[in-house]
Amino acid sequence: MTPANTELQTHLQEYAKLIIRSGCNLQPGQELLLSCNIDVVEFARLLVAEAYAAGAKRVTVRFSDEQIVRMAYENVAIECFKEVPEWVALLNNSMARNGAAILRIESDDPQALEGIDPQKLAAQAVASHKACKEFYDAIDQGRLVWSIAGAASPAWARKVFPDMPEDQAVRSLWEAILKTVRVGGSDDAIVAWENHRTSFTRRSEWLNAQNFDSLHYQNSLGTDLTVGLNPKGIWKGGGDILTNGRPFFPNMPTEEIFTTPDRLRADGVVHSSMPLVHNGSIVEDFSVTFRDGQAVDCKARVGLDILKSIIETDADSNRLGECALVPWTSPIRQSGLLFYSTLYDENASCHLALGMGFPDCLEGGTEMSEDELKANGVNKSATHVDFMIGTKDLNITGHRPDGSEATIFQAGEWAGELV
Amino acid sequence: MTPANTELQTHLQEYAKLIIRSGCNLQPGQELLLSCNIDVVEFARLLVAEAYAAGAKRVTVRFSDEQIVRMAYENVAIECFKEVPEWVALLNNSMARNGAAILRIESDDPQALEGIDPQKLAAQAVASHKACKEFYDAIDQGRLVWSIAGAASPAWARKVFPDMPEDQAVRSLWEAILKTVRVGGSDDAIVAWENHRTSFTRRSEWLNAQNFDSLHYQNSLGTDLTVGLNPKGIWKGGGDILTNGRPFFPNMPTEEIFTTPDRLRADGVVHSSMPLVHNGSIVEDFSVTFRDGQAVDCKARVGLDILKSIIETDADSNRLGECALVPWTSPIRQSGLLFYSTLYDENASCHLALGMGFPDCLEGGTEMSEDELKANGVNKSATHVDFMIGTKDLNITGHRPDGSEATIFQAGEWAGELV
Repeated sequence: MTPANTELQTHLQEYAKLIIRSGCNLQPGQELLLSCNIDVVEFARLLVAEAYAAGAKRVTVRFSDEQIVRMAYENVAIECFKEVPEWVALLNNSMARNGAAILRIESDDPQALEGIDPQKLAAQAVASHKACKEFYDAIDQGRLVWSIAGAASPAWARKVFPDMPEDQAVRSLWEAILKTVRVGGSDDAIVAWENHRTSFTRRSEWLNAQNFDSLHYQNSLGTDLTVGLNPKGIWKGGGDILTNGRPFFPNMPTEEIFTTPDRLRADGVVHSSMPLVHNGSIVEDFSVTFRDGQAVDCKARVGLDILKSIIETDADSNRLGECALVPWTSPIRQSGLLFYSTLYDENASCHLALGMGFPDCLEGGTEMSEDELKANGVNKSATHVDFMIGTKDLNITGHRPDGSEATIFQAGEWAGELV
Repeated sequence: MTPANTELQTHLQEYAKLIIRSGCNLQPGQELLLSCNIDVVEFARLLVAEAYAAGAKRVTVRFSDEQIVRMAYENVAIECFKEVPEWVALLNNSMARNGAAILRIESDDPQALEGIDPQKLAAQAVASHKACKEFYDAIDQGRLVWSIAGAASPAWARKVFPDMPEDQAVRSLWEAILKTVRVGGSDDAIVAWENHRTSFTRRSEWLNAQNFDSLHYQNSLGTDLTVGLNPKGIWKGGGDILTNGRPFFPNMPTEEIFTTPDRLRADGVVHSSMPLVHNGSIVEDFSVTFRDGQAVDCKARVGLDILKSIIETDADSNRLGECALVPWTSPIRQSGLLFYSTLYDENASCHLALGMGFPDCLEGGTEMSEDELKANGVNKSATHVDFMIGTKDLNITGHRPDGSEATIFQAGEWAGELV
């Protein structure tokens, strides 16, 4: 083993510990459900070892193989995707009942599912949401810790670094991942993430104090969109907290401050600023036109059918569930890489999401019924798909109920009191 | 890819097809449950492709990683192993209800679980048998197709061929496996297995016609054991047939003709002729003394605690469930290899098994209640552990109820009418 490899190995160990301790905040006696692809098994072993070191009662690992998943989508009838095997539902729902921490490691080949019938993917998303209601409710209502982090697989690395030999590409992707999650810097990664958490506080507190009624987005791509905000809306970011007060990081990395907009108010047109990778398929250079909160038209140079299938997943997947602010100079953007993974790429740029909103971005939202959430503007859908809209000339203005306004973003960066 | 690699690849494809078509006899519209270790994922992909080519409705793959399994046994409290997660029970039981084919690919590192507390392993076996009763009953009663075959993993290959570089060891193990399953010979493998099936018929029909009341084993190791047979007992071998008439091969390879002995009649001492590998631990040079069907004493040069834990798994794991005849010149024996895997090594030699008997080795057995099976001499236990007793000087004599006798094995080979 070369010295450089030893250093990478040390950093991977630190990263695994960071995910278990800060991401999942795993407690002694707690269960962990880990999902990952088989091609990152070596990193999965580090995570399992760290979980037992943290006192995990039991770690359940669900391995997938992307090639076998693809074969299923190619060969299995769509009717089968309209149901979820009862054991899968019980697996997820019983983990929720047992208060397990839910960890997903993403390492997907961005093109793994290219060409697969989007109807099958959408059917599976709807069926899973219905069958695993207890599980998803526990997450939505802030009762279950969940965390998503990335690991470098050969197929993904080849996509991000197409000109490198595979070994070097995997190594480069690991190094890029480790930078985005603050491993290998001057601070211990766990300390760095505590600082990261508090750095979000000032901006989100300021935003929450403004009580903006709407945001107005404008840039040279042609974006001219007004998004309504909920009177009881909450801006969050950097980390999340369960209703019992336990902090965790749902996404690693994370650079965004976000809220759930009013599902009934979005008007105008918004243009994508980066490609959208959805279930392995790519949508590029697209725009969506909204009227009264609903996407009423969309265009795309590449992948229009994918975009339409996202919008048409269910009755309310054509409405907005998230509105997130990320400066153009974010470290992920500055890496200059397109990761082909929302987990990373969403932290490069301001974005919106079609589909499900976040009950915990509304005062009292986690205790509300579905009808109450809807009445308070929080969208409900089986899907939640981020798409990037931030550019270096994006301006965002916040409008208050009294008619006054404040600049939030100027030329792609935090502006005014948010600088 | 070298020409030799291409040939191996062609043979692996043929082997995958053999397992799906002959081993599982998978029908169009049927589900398949495949369990395997992640280190044989490439072979798993071939199997999944063959399953869909055969018209599988859906293939569910359960991947395990041996290092993670070991971490669980090292870190999780024994109480957890006394239960099976409810989703695991539902997975197995629902597969039984749906009439899925059950396929397990073995590639285990023979030493993966060395040093693990045998109490945890035994507790897990008992719990699994209880929680997955519907699943195990469907197998025991001939309603569910199940098949076990092997695949070469690096860790296993290193153990079988310790003096070779890893790549070469894996390749050599694949070549050995392919020979034992008749792939790459002059006949198409599926045809070869049909011939193999019929070759067992003459011997098992002769044995069934004799209606032996007991077998007497004797050799120079000191074995001097009499095993009682059941009046309604059936000798089987080469393949199995569901109660609905569908044939399949539970084990690939298979060279044995076997029956379920009388659980109450075994007297004398029997010596092992090969090491016993159990959950990754090894028992060597051991003997077991039986009285009235029960193991009342045991000795071992290596692994005595493992042997004892097998015998003491539950109330009836100290009785015999299987008695199998394999000539000393079997192809697996002739390979000269110790595979460190019962699937292979049991086909090298005559053997017995402690624990569960086979209801389908008794006339009407698959329709009997547990009490009826017990009353008819079929043992019931959560475990079933084969151990090898065949030597090149083993003699076996069959005794009929009328006091007459016939030589079955002479100097390790089929004798008399069975030659």
